[in-house]
Amino acid sequence: MTRHRVVIIGGGFGGLYAAQALRRSPVDITIIDKRNFHLFQPLLYQVATGGLSPGDIASPIRAALRNQSNAEVLLGEVRDIDPNARTVALQSGRLVPYDSLIVATGATHSYFGNPQWEQFAPGLKTLEDATEMRRRMLYAFEAAEMEPDAALRRQWLRFVIVGAGPTGVELAGAIGEIANKTLREEFRRIRPEEAEILLLDAGDRVLSVYPAELSASAEKSLIKLSVRTRTKVKVTAIDADGVSVETPTGPEHIPAKTVFWAAGVQASPIGRLLAERTGVALDRAGRVLVNSDLTVASHPGIFAVGDLAAITQDGKPVPGVAPAAMQMGQYAARAITARAQNKPAPAPFRYWDKGSLAVIGRASAVADFGSVRFTGLMAWLAWLFIHLMYIVGFQNRVLVFIQWAFHYFTFNRGARLITGSR
Amino acid sequence: MTRHRVVIIGGGFGGLYAAQALRRSPVDITIIDKRNFHLFQPLLYQVATGGLSPGDIASPIRAALRNQSNAEVLLGEVRDIDPNARTVALQSGRLVPYDSLIVATGATHSYFGNPQWEQFAPGLKTLEDATEMRRRMLYAFEAAEMEPDAALRRQWLRFVIVGAGPTGVELAGAIGEIANKTLREEFRRIRPEEAEILLLDAGDRVLSVYPAELSASAEKSLIKLSVRTRTKVKVTAIDADGVSVETPTGPEHIPAKTVFWAAGVQASPIGRLLAERTGVALDRAGRVLVNSDLTVASHPGIFAVGDLAAITQDGKPVPGVAPAAMQMGQYAARAITARAQNKPAPAPFRYWDKGSLAVIGRASAVADFGSVRFTGLMAWLAWLFIHLMYIVGFQNRVLVFIQWAFHYFTFNRGARLITGSR
Repeated sequence: MTRHRVVIIGGGFGGLYAAQALRRSPVDITIIDKRNFHLFQPLLYQVATGGLSPGDIASPIRAALRNQSNAEVLLGEVRDIDPNARTVALQSGRLVPYDSLIVATGATHSYFGNPQWEQFAPGLKTLEDATEMRRRMLYAFEAAEMEPDAALRRQWLRFVIVGAGPTGVELAGAIGEIANKTLREEFRRIRPEEAEILLLDAGDRVLSVYPAELSASAEKSLIKLSVRTRTKVKVTAIDADGVSVETPTGPEHIPAKTVFWAAGVQASPIGRLLAERTGVALDRAGRVLVNSDLTVASHPGIFAVGDLAAITQDGKPVPGVAPAAMQMGQYAARAITARAQNKPAPAPFRYWDKGSLAVIGRASAVADFGSVRFTGLMAWLAWLFIHLMYIVGFQNRVLVFIQWAFHYFTFNRGARLITGSR
Repeated sequence: MTRHRVVIIGGGFGGLYAAQALRRSPVDITIIDKRNFHLFQPLLYQVATGGLSPGDIASPIRAALRNQSNAEVLLGEVRDIDPNARTVALQSGRLVPYDSLIVATGATHSYFGNPQWEQFAPGLKTLEDATEMRRRMLYAFEAAEMEPDAALRRQWLRFVIVGAGPTGVELAGAIGEIANKTLREEFRRIRPEEAEILLLDAGDRVLSVYPAELSASAEKSLIKLSVRTRTKVKVTAIDADGVSVETPTGPEHIPAKTVFWAAGVQASPIGRLLAERTGVALDRAGRVLVNSDLTVASHPGIFAVGDLAAITQDGKPVPGVAPAAMQMGQYAARAITARAQNKPAPAPFRYWDKGSLAVIGRASAVADFGSVRFTGLMAWLAWLFIHLMYIVGFQNRVLVFIQWAFHYFTFNRGARLITGSR
């Protein structure tokens, strides 16, 4: 008798936590990912700003599942899904059969129909994105040091971040810290402290998903790091010379050599494939509208979890954050285990919101745990503790902690490398 | 009155140690490098084999010279040197004037007139080389896991390293450890222990610069890590299918998907430029034949140091190793200081050989300190201590030590990431 075969596409938080939750289940698991590692995405901005190395926030999927004998890992890209034959086709031509399928391919950045902006304003989803951001940011200071023309020098020292959600705030805060602390005394012709960091958002405050009092607190912390936030500002064009915006007082052009994109996300293209093959509806961001048990359309054997899945709870969408992805992955695992054991299905999925945290700089963060809200050092320590708890792999945890400790006391960032080129 | 201007090209061991040795001298220093960081090259093979992250062995040149107010750093590539006008021209068009010039641009790998081999057999000189090697090595195991054909699977599991000097031995040993220890239990269809690692050399023993007894010891240690060494083997061709060789018993073709090059080095192209501009002679590897005070031809204001410089001592060439580069850089600094202060020139340069060390795997190395030679754990501990002492930056030192400690006890390698693509 063959065991129930579970195929998981994607080794992010949703996929990896699903695989691990199936550890003791009577199933055979195949996890497919185009990368060989699980990425701890909440810390990606630290790689982009030279605080951590890529290896610190990534861990091989194989290593995470080494002792789980019912799981195997395939490095490959998915080309198609056939819900009737119940197979996943890889680019290599290989067909992987399944009894249950968990699709957890996440999201990428969206330029709202302006893909040509990407070359001028990279977003932050992959390790390569992070090292590219790092390269551009560090190179800007080098170029300013060498630039004899004062106006051009100002453009090299102006950093524009589009989107003031958690990623935008974290990036802006880190760049502020680099300019004001890390690079201090390292240049002879420019003063890095003179860098101008602009954080733009179309909404009326930063961190708009947080309560208003926390937004105000975050903005205050950002100002101390010389980050200027500009709200109600809509980007209309981005090119090599800067950003054109529409403001409440009219159009404006902001000349800048370095622009980063932290504004929009869209689901991975596998969402569209799933829609074509199963008839499931997608939301505007391309996410799959899943049933209350995270299954797709009338296919009880196919689950979508994590950033790829769209589900509302108590009238509000479940946010695209790591804890939600982990919980969805674990729920799908429970549902599949019940099925494999012919037991009743679990109650509908419910997201347990443990709270949100956004870090702004050294010893500065905002935390919203529902009834409890706090800011400053306490919030920062909570952020530190939670991220260390969750980061995959014991060695990574120790390394990250030590780098943070050094960073805290010295403001130094060890991974300030300009590598690669585009 | 303007101060004596020293321009240093290259921020490797030669250039950086020269700049630091000029710390208290009455000179103004400009150090020019096309990269923004100093690279601790002796540990590059650890990045290539996933033991360390790029950030662990690289440190921004600016950070190293932050508190040295008489030094400035320029990110740029050198286009020309004019010994009459005493200027260095950058690709950007900028001219940097000097009174004394130290050229320390190092070496790169050489394919002995077969540059077309590089795409099939990358060498190891830059951080990008190291991550490319890491990608190919890790991908080979993934490809073997997915390959249904047994013959092809064997080719994916065969690793050929050309050149059994210290770099080749270190690479081969590390790959052996990865196959036998690190990846153990991580695959379901292949057994990584079955990987075949071939270390080829045209000479008659591995580590030919070491005494014969140490070569024999190294070879024994390599065998334990399933590395097979083949000596008196000359490579005649490399392509996507493997390596063609000439052996004492005739020609042979070794089919393999992964080939690494650790055979030859040649001086950086700046050597040729220097020869054209100053008339100095080059040796076969393109190195600059310097005078006994490390100056070039009849130009007492131009020094060549490190892997770029060729100099013999007691009838033997000074080896192209980090300690020699450091000592040459420091010597050039002393000579320049004497000149700037109108004091007599120092005695001719002498290389003080503190000994050589090559590491083979965990707790295994060979050390040759002239009168004292040892192998095994003791040599490995000496290697560990010396490399930790010299690695630039306090934070890096602690991080590297912790990763080695983990690696020692767990055989795990934290930076096993397949990133980028070529």
